[in-house]
Amino acid sequence: MSNKNEWPLLLIDEEIVRRNVRRMKKRADEAGCVLRPHFKTHQSAEIGEWIREEGVEAITVSSLGMALYFADAGWKDILIAMPVNILLLDELKKLSERLERLVIMVDHPDALEAIAGRIKAGVVIEVDTGSNRTGVPFSAPQQAKHLLEQIEAADGLQFEGFYSHAGHHYAGRGEEDINSRGNKSLDGLLAVRDTVAPGASVFFGDTPYASVGSRLKDIDVLTPGNFVFYDMMQVQIGSCSEKDIAICLACPVISVHAERNELAIHGGGVHLAKDVLEDGSYGRIVRLRSSGWSVPLPGYKLRSISQEHGIVSLPEKEIADWKVGDVLGILPVHSCMTAEAMGGYKLVTDGLISHYRKKKPV
Amino acid sequence: MSNKNEWPLLLIDEEIVRRNVRRMKKRADEAGCVLRPHFKTHQSAEIGEWIREEGVEAITVSSLGMALYFADAGWKDILIAMPVNILLLDELKKLSERLERLVIMVDHPDALEAIAGRIKAGVVIEVDTGSNRTGVPFSAPQQAKHLLEQIEAADGLQFEGFYSHAGHHYAGRGEEDINSRGNKSLDGLLAVRDTVAPGASVFFGDTPYASVGSRLKDIDVLTPGNFVFYDMMQVQIGSCSEKDIAICLACPVISVHAERNELAIHGGGVHLAKDVLEDGSYGRIVRLRSSGWSVPLPGYKLRSISQEHGIVSLPEKEIADWKVGDVLGILPVHSCMTAEAMGGYKLVTDGLISHYRKKKPV
Repeated sequence: MSNKNEWPLLLIDEEIVRRNVRRMKKRADEAGCVLRPHFKTHQSAEIGEWIREEGVEAITVSSLGMALYFADAGWKDILIAMPVNILLLDELKKLSERLERLVIMVDHPDALEAIAGRIKAGVVIEVDTGSNRTGVPFSAPQQAKHLLEQIEAADGLQFEGFYSHAGHHYAGRGEEDINSRGNKSLDGLLAVRDTVAPGASVFFGDTPYASVGSRLKDIDVLTPGNFVFYDMMQVQIGSCSEKDIAICLACPVISVHAERNELAIHGGGVHLAKDVLEDGSYGRIVRLRSSGWSVPLPGYKLRSISQEHGIVSLPEKEIADWKVGDVLGILPVHSCMTAEAMGGYKLVTDGLISHYRKKKPV
Repeated sequence: MSNKNEWPLLLIDEEIVRRNVRRMKKRADEAGCVLRPHFKTHQSAEIGEWIREEGVEAITVSSLGMALYFADAGWKDILIAMPVNILLLDELKKLSERLERLVIMVDHPDALEAIAGRIKAGVVIEVDTGSNRTGVPFSAPQQAKHLLEQIEAADGLQFEGFYSHAGHHYAGRGEEDINSRGNKSLDGLLAVRDTVAPGASVFFGDTPYASVGSRLKDIDVLTPGNFVFYDMMQVQIGSCSEKDIAICLACPVISVHAERNELAIHGGGVHLAKDVLEDGSYGRIVRLRSSGWSVPLPGYKLRSISQEHGIVSLPEKEIADWKVGDVLGILPVHSCMTAEAMGGYKLVTDGLISHYRKKKPV
């Protein structure tokens, strides 16, 4: 690995990304649903191309800025999966004129009132299937019906279906539990659809359910994001195994504290973000290989991170194996946040690729 | 406030920053110590100039990249306060040739062995006064002595003193507790100094102790960072009051959930980072004014954040006051992390200023 003036580096294994994408595309194809992946995880034009090569034509993002970035990269069909920010109406209008299809999301009548007649766009109605974040409660289909009436009455708006992100599935553990939670959320979403607009499309599929859920055939549009990289949180949930994780933070060892069996590394909250696993650790430690990395090292724990530092505890018998100036790898807890924090990637085959955050290769 | 194609915006109140800097400079002057502030908090060339105008000439940073950025901005005396990353020796050497003084930090003999004779630089020995992160344990002064001998034997290295960042002070609550913890850490540091190199300088002063500690006179070089902005964590610790907080994240309301007395905002983990207060909240909610913001609104709680979303609960009687498209403010829990995540600032007087992360004005 070549030196550069900043450590740590975020390594990416293109083969793992492509394998993850192919697997998800195959699941979607077999279930007869359209894969519209959420690009907020990788936020990279180059990685977008890998995904396009697998036959994906439409994408999901989480902000106008990210939509503009991927429009510049040639994507023509973009869904912004946040309740629409009406303060950005002019900018959204300009974007909709550049795309074949811009899809916005609504969950409140005031937002629709503000935009009706002022923009040409597809619209999905967000349904809250239990996450208590955004969306019309699935228990209040009359609210969704009211939004649908507003959409149908407005010039330029085209109803596209019902969307739900079931963030509460992240509390699931194991395939059976993910299915139990996911099927319940999906039933809630389908019930709203069947009450308000039978036959309309449903957009669904957080990474856990999209990865191991059994009823993708009931979904029209599958919208997972994290699956391109996966991470230790998804391993903890049961969506994937460690070998599916496609990014790894390479961190130099800056000190060895033999008296307490710990390494200090340059790698902290500004690189990994601060998501944490159930055991209180901030990622799993691996050894770097000439082109990739090992499985997680047993008995190693990234026990603490601050702004730039990380502290790794390890088995006493292995402390002598590590020297100042070595480089270790960390499989991140939450790859979306780590990618956002790092703003770029380094291919394990040694090239550099960009992230929306930094726009150009690092 | 003008629209732009991305929300949220990180507002900065220049008057509060300048007041915070003046107060800290006055404390340092009165105690007879040099203020060498840590620039990892603001990471901005422009804010650096405000600080320079108060008479500061030497700074502290936490990475080589940040040092290069501030060297480009005209700073000539820079301390990189992380145990030196020996993989970057060539780049460090080039930097040292550009500066009047580059100071690096060591806490391990192998790092010194790797750089001795290969670079011209000042060196501080890091001492761990209880944070269990990096540094020679204060209970093992013979380790510091060994490092000092290495420094003195090496061509080009100049011993500058002993440095300690007492991160464990963040567990303190209130002036008395901060002093009790801080004086203990300072005593540990002074004992190492007096044993190993009587008369050498001590570098000390996390934001809590630098703000309200009573023994600055025992410190030679004061190195706080966070104090330029402060934040809700520092309010919780007792280093400052809410009116000292100089940055505020302006977030649009994207939905109103009257049925559960909650607002959904565009503002989440990628903007605020995920530090959390003792009450489980991710920041305090304020109303934005034409040039600044209010005190925190009682009964409001930023109870949850995900990648881009935040959920604010508020008193039932006030839910009707908020509409989709309103903008509210959040006083961050950890301003260093929020500034890093946002990568730029918007002056409340309407200008834009830059952050190392994005390099140019947002």
